[in-house]
Amino acid sequence: MAEWRHVQGSLPVAITTGEPAGIGPELVLRLAADGLLPSASVAVGDPTMLAERAAALGLGVTPTPCRPGEPLPEGPGVLPVWPVLLKAPSTPGVLDPTNADYVLGTLAAAVTACRAGHAAAMTTAPLHKGAIIDGGHPGFTGHTEWLRDACGVEEVVMMLATDSALHATRAGFDGPSELRVALVTTHLPLRDVADAVTAERLKRVARILEHDLREQFGIAAPRIVACGLNPHAGEDGHLGHEEVDTLIPALDALRAEGRDIRGPYPADTLFTPRHLAEVDAVLAMYHDQGLAVLKYAGFGSAANITLGLPLVRTSVDHGTALDLAGKGLASPASLGVAVALARRLADRRMAG
Amino acid sequence: MAEWRHVQGSLPVAITTGEPAGIGPELVLRLAADGLLPSASVAVGDPTMLAERAAALGLGVTPTPCRPGEPLPEGPGVLPVWPVLLKAPSTPGVLDPTNADYVLGTLAAAVTACRAGHAAAMTTAPLHKGAIIDGGHPGFTGHTEWLRDACGVEEVVMMLATDSALHATRAGFDGPSELRVALVTTHLPLRDVADAVTAERLKRVARILEHDLREQFGIAAPRIVACGLNPHAGEDGHLGHEEVDTLIPALDALRAEGRDIRGPYPADTLFTPRHLAEVDAVLAMYHDQGLAVLKYAGFGSAANITLGLPLVRTSVDHGTALDLAGKGLASPASLGVAVALARRLADRRMAG
Repeated sequence: MAEWRHVQGSLPVAITTGEPAGIGPELVLRLAADGLLPSASVAVGDPTMLAERAAALGLGVTPTPCRPGEPLPEGPGVLPVWPVLLKAPSTPGVLDPTNADYVLGTLAAAVTACRAGHAAAMTTAPLHKGAIIDGGHPGFTGHTEWLRDACGVEEVVMMLATDSALHATRAGFDGPSELRVALVTTHLPLRDVADAVTAERLKRVARILEHDLREQFGIAAPRIVACGLNPHAGEDGHLGHEEVDTLIPALDALRAEGRDIRGPYPADTLFTPRHLAEVDAVLAMYHDQGLAVLKYAGFGSAANITLGLPLVRTSVDHGTALDLAGKGLASPASLGVAVALARRLADRRMAG
Repeated sequence: MAEWRHVQGSLPVAITTGEPAGIGPELVLRLAADGLLPSASVAVGDPTMLAERAAALGLGVTPTPCRPGEPLPEGPGVLPVWPVLLKAPSTPGVLDPTNADYVLGTLAAAVTACRAGHAAAMTTAPLHKGAIIDGGHPGFTGHTEWLRDACGVEEVVMMLATDSALHATRAGFDGPSELRVALVTTHLPLRDVADAVTAERLKRVARILEHDLREQFGIAAPRIVACGLNPHAGEDGHLGHEEVDTLIPALDALRAEGRDIRGPYPADTLFTPRHLAEVDAVLAMYHDQGLAVLKYAGFGSAANITLGLPLVRTSVDHGTALDLAGKGLASPASLGVAVALARRLADRRMAG
């Protein structure tokens, strides 16, 4: 991470505006109009399209082109934009696979800026997987995998976090101010999960999680708790053998490496204030085990963080919502949380 | 349910005190000492054992024997007890399978009292499955199945509910005041879940859920939302085929019967205030999908309700905690919620 240490001042967070037919562009504009973007934020996308969307929705925002490495334009209503040009005009709600390369171009521009020291972090608005595939990228499986390959790393970890401020307003709650849940497996059919949770995968994911809680979140000695795979964490083998055969040996090995990782504990007792107050992150074995409770706790506005990358990347926790696009109805809450989290992580990293 | 209609006045809730070596007895005594039991409550268990436990913990409670159908004894510190006698003396923390028949005897007494019109409902403190099995009941799989067989019904449904009052104190929350989650499958290894969620089982469970939301909870037109089985509810078949092949046809059939049942929706977006505000219960496909979020929302004190029985039965959401037994340290919160819920459901039923 030494490459970041020379950076001074407040480098911007680059916000890729995502699928142009989706809600991404208007969410960025809405945050800018409402003064909810950190001061050093820059949108990545087509400036003309963004200006048209702002005008159509009556948002007092002026998307203003500039270039990575140059000072950001300032002024009332100014939204700095690093330009990437559409391949074809875009209508809200109407996918056009011609723009697949445009969407990927915004990602490439943000990655390049982060790696060149022109951006402190990147936050991604939603893209549409089908449109990217149909646009000539049949192997495309998602933002996260694309970034993994673009950064040349072997494995990344999906973590979601609630917004601490929002969370703290839910009073009477003396649990953690922020809930973080990382996943051992992500987008798999449920029937494939048990076989996919191997000891090797569990160990790799836990090591990345522990490393990035330290490096990205600044937690000196991260405390992690792992869920069981089966209900009641297998109840000593009565409700499934994976805990005995796989999880417990893997967690023992991680503890032998000096890591503070507890469990496997039953997911339904682990997500209670008494247990959560003692840990920095929960490691869930699969998607719905961890994310149903995370998004409930996050009140519909959690942020997604990709761990294991050589840059800070956060994203929204929702999709393109084509049915809402262009109507100004979609909530920018998750994008706002994601940008704020990227800012916070980047500042901590630069201060490190 | 006509058998209940003739009942007048406030029949007691019968609280089975559970495994005598566990925390059940002291939780009932603690609630009584703290004045947290509804006025018409009666413990079911060994009066001498209960009196000894009360004395050992310094609780100002006098367990007082009486008989079903007779008026309950009253007075300062009086806890009415329907006697069932231990088979062997019991020491906190030390299981003795000799008492398996004692534990089952408390259940039988409560069921008999409910069916005879001497109790309005029953609430069960935890038992220890292993001790019952070792005590001569090798086929014993749990409270719920035992009650199913004792009542002669074919299928029951496990539902958990948060305590509405507690839930409402978590301010800033304009979602439901009470979260209810019922399960299509319960205590199965995760790798067996996908095959166990058949269309027939889903339909049977949904019908019982809808029936008892109406009959037990007094909801005239219950609104239910079903989770998908796979992450993102299968994403149109990209993340698993069970939604397309099984869940959607089954839910369509239920809707064709006139039931208000929505979904399948992704579990991680469904458990958010916007969606929960519109439904009376969530139908989760498996244990950790529904109960992690339910117990988080319930703040560690949810109650378990068995639907499909010809009587009202609630229970704690935790086990015997042998390591805590006899120390007075275990929280009676879940038992308190379970008794209060039983009281509320019974009163509604008697008023119906």
